[in-house]
Formats: sequence, structure tokens, C-alpha cells
Amino acid sequence: MSSHHIVRDDQEPALIIANGEACSMELLNQLLEWNPLVIVLDSAITRVLDLGIKVDVLIGDFDRDFDYEYYKNLQYPIEIVKLAEQDSYDIDKAINYLINRRIPAANIVWATGKRMDHTFTNITNLIKYQEVIKLVMIDDYSKIFPLQKNFVKWYPKETILSLIPVGTVDGISTKNLKYELKNDSLILGFKPGSSNEVLTDGLVEITYKNGHLILMECND
Amino acid sequence: MSSHHIVRDDQEPALIIANGEACSMELLNQLLEWNPLVIVLDSAITRVLDLGIKVDVLIGDFDRDFDYEYYKNLQYPIEIVKLAEQDSYDIDKAINYLINRRIPAANIVWATGKRMDHTFTNITNLIKYQEVIKLVMIDDYSKIFPLQKNFVKWYPKETILSLIPVGTVDGISTKNLKYELKNDSLILGFKPGSSNEVLTDGLVEITYKNGHLILMECND
Repeated sequence: MSSHHIVRDDQEPALIIANGEACSMELLNQLLEWNPLVIVLDSAITRVLDLGIKVDVLIGDFDRDFDYEYYKNLQYPIEIVKLAEQDSYDIDKAINYLINRRIPAANIVWATGKRMDHTFTNITNLIKYQEVIKLVMIDDYSKIFPLQKNFVKWYPKETILSLIPVGTVDGISTKNLKYELKNDSLILGFKPGSSNEVLTDGLVEITYKNGHLILMECND
Repeated sequence: MSSHHIVRDDQEPALIIANGEACSMELLNQLLEWNPLVIVLDSAITRVLDLGIKVDVLIGDFDRDFDYEYYKNLQYPIEIVKLAEQDSYDIDKAINYLINRRIPAANIVWATGKRMDHTFTNITNLIKYQEVIKLVMIDDYSKIFPLQKNFVKWYPKETILSLIPVGTVDGISTKNLKYELKNDSLILGFKPGSSNEVLTDGLVEITYKNGHLILMECND
């Protein structure tokens, strides 16, 4: 539960709560700990309020029956953003809202699980915002983010890292991974890069030339 | 629970039980009703046996401690296939096993949910088998299968159909869908085709020229 009585720094990563499978309360509480701006998508609001979470912004097209006044009173102050464009998904509406507010980063939860079309589209859509906002999608088993062309990060030995090509990715090279890539390609559906593994405690480097690569840090 | 005392016709779709999130027992029992050949992947075996399901084939690399004799006695007769190739995933091992036995079709469950790298790779890997075996991946919210270039099927009005391009797909045309495509392209991550909808009770047609398209029938 976040009380939101402190002054909020908009440079903190915001938290988008989408409409997929709920994560553990432990994970959710970790993400709420620093009082992020909380944005909830459409009908997820009922599930979020049941958890006693203070919501700052509610976004959606609200195509089903929706009682604005009810949520305004319940969650005062709350911003309610109704966007009716049929050709964008609710998650895109939330991300564009943050971009317009010049918020540089967001964590996204409840965006995986349940319907696989939503899951799949939510994950792959991350790449189109890569240049404008730092997005990390998190659930109980996975941490998912688009990779910049030169990625360097410290990992402990045996961390599982999955390189997911969104389409075809060329010129991939890695350092400190068990299945090393040397100027190689990955092709979604044909040449996957899932379940690679960090060799030794230390920096992992992943570079690539063309295409879009997503990194997934996953655990059983 | 399937007793398997009837003569089995290898033309029935087999059932692959992977190692992701369990589906409902209702769905599992529906799929077991016609006594399919049941293939279980690696450590999923413990969860499957807990449900009292008769397993015909157990496939994996069994890199953790694994007691063959225990399962042989428990599930007699059972075929245990140990395949150690590190460069194929367990689900590929199961699919290739079926192809070698010339079994023309399989349903796949427990292949989604939990780790998103497995989920993502399991779904997209379907396309590479499209010419040799008919595969349908099913969970409680989604039915997922690769589309042949000329797809025609009867659907009731308002059925949600998501067209998922695995990479870039060109020359897509549709009939009887709300968001009509006319020789259009879909591009994963940039131009998605998720959450389309059947206009009227009747035949839906989807044709495309290049690339690989997956159809997802999803429900909340």
C-alpha cells in the first residue's frame, strides 16, 4: 500500500499496471515502495483497488459501462484519461501518456499471462518506444526489456539470459555467455537465442548491428 | 484420467504436456478424452503423475538427477527418450519425436505461462513445423496455431481473432473481419494485428503472400 503523501519526483520510474495476470504482492510492493506514479489500464482498476493501491492515473477507452464519478470520489485526486482511438492498445495509450509528460522510465506489471495475444503484443511493442522511454516489463518469473545496440551489465554466474529477436537480428556478438555469438544472426521462430547462461560473475556484453533484440531475465 | 486400454489410432492428435503453467483440469480432461498418445517433457512428469494421468512417452535431456527405473515401474509401459542435444529445446525434441513416428497432429498444453522466454519461444517455434505436422497450442485463454497461406474457417460473430506476424508478413487480405486487411503488411512490434473481430456468423478468410502468420483465438 502506498500513501503518496510525499512529494513525488517525476524522474522515478512510473508504474503501469496492465490488465493481464496479477503478479505476487511481494513484487508489487517492491515496485510501489518508492511511491511511483501509478497508471492503471481500463478495467484492471477494480482489481487494483481491491488491493488497496492508490492510483494516480486511469487510462483506457472505457468501452464497457464505466462510472467516472465513482472512481473520482474513491481515489481523489485521480486523473482519468479517456482515449478512444481504436487503433492503439491500452498499454500504448499509457506509454504515450508518460512520453507526453516527459517521464523517462516505467516499470510495467500485469502485462503478461492470461490472453496470449495481449501478452505477445505487449512484449513485442516494447521495442518501438526504445528511443524515447526506458521500459521494463516484470512478472513473477521474468524481467523483460529491449536491448540497446551495445549492452553491458554485471550478472552473477549461471544467470539465465534469453535473447529474443523480434524478427531477424544480425551481427550479434556476446561476451561471457555460455553459447557465444560471434557476429551471428537470430531469427524468431527459426534460430532462437533463448536460455543462454552467464559463464562467470562479471560483465556480460551483447552487441548487435541490425534489428530489434529483447532481453529476458527469467527464473523458474 | 485416461485408462488407455483401447487400441490407439496414431492418427489421433497426440498430446504434448510441456513444462509451463498448468491449464485447468477441464481443458486437460477434454484433450485426454480420446486417449491421445501422451508425451511429457522432462521434469513436468512429477506434476503430471500427481494428476493421475497415464503417460506414454517421457522426453528430455534429464540434466538434473533423474531416476529412470522409478518412472518405468510407476508408468509401465512407458517409453523414455533421453536426448541430450543442447541446441534443441525440450518441446522441439517432443515435436521431432512425433514427426519421426509420422504422427500428423498434436495438441500442446502447459507451454505458456510462467517463464516468458519459454512461452515466447514455444509459440514462435510452431511455425517451423508448419509443413510437416499440425500443431495447436492451447491454454485456458488461448488457442494458437500457425496459419497456412489460405485459411478459411467458420466462426461465430464477435469472435476475437489475433493475427500475429512472426517478423514481417506481407500481402495479407481478410474477409469478414472488423479491421479488414487488403494486401497489407503486419510487422511484429510495430504494426500488430491483435484483437481483430469476426463481423458476422460465417466463414472468415485470411490469405497472405510472404512471411509467417500465427492465429490466436483468445478469450478473457
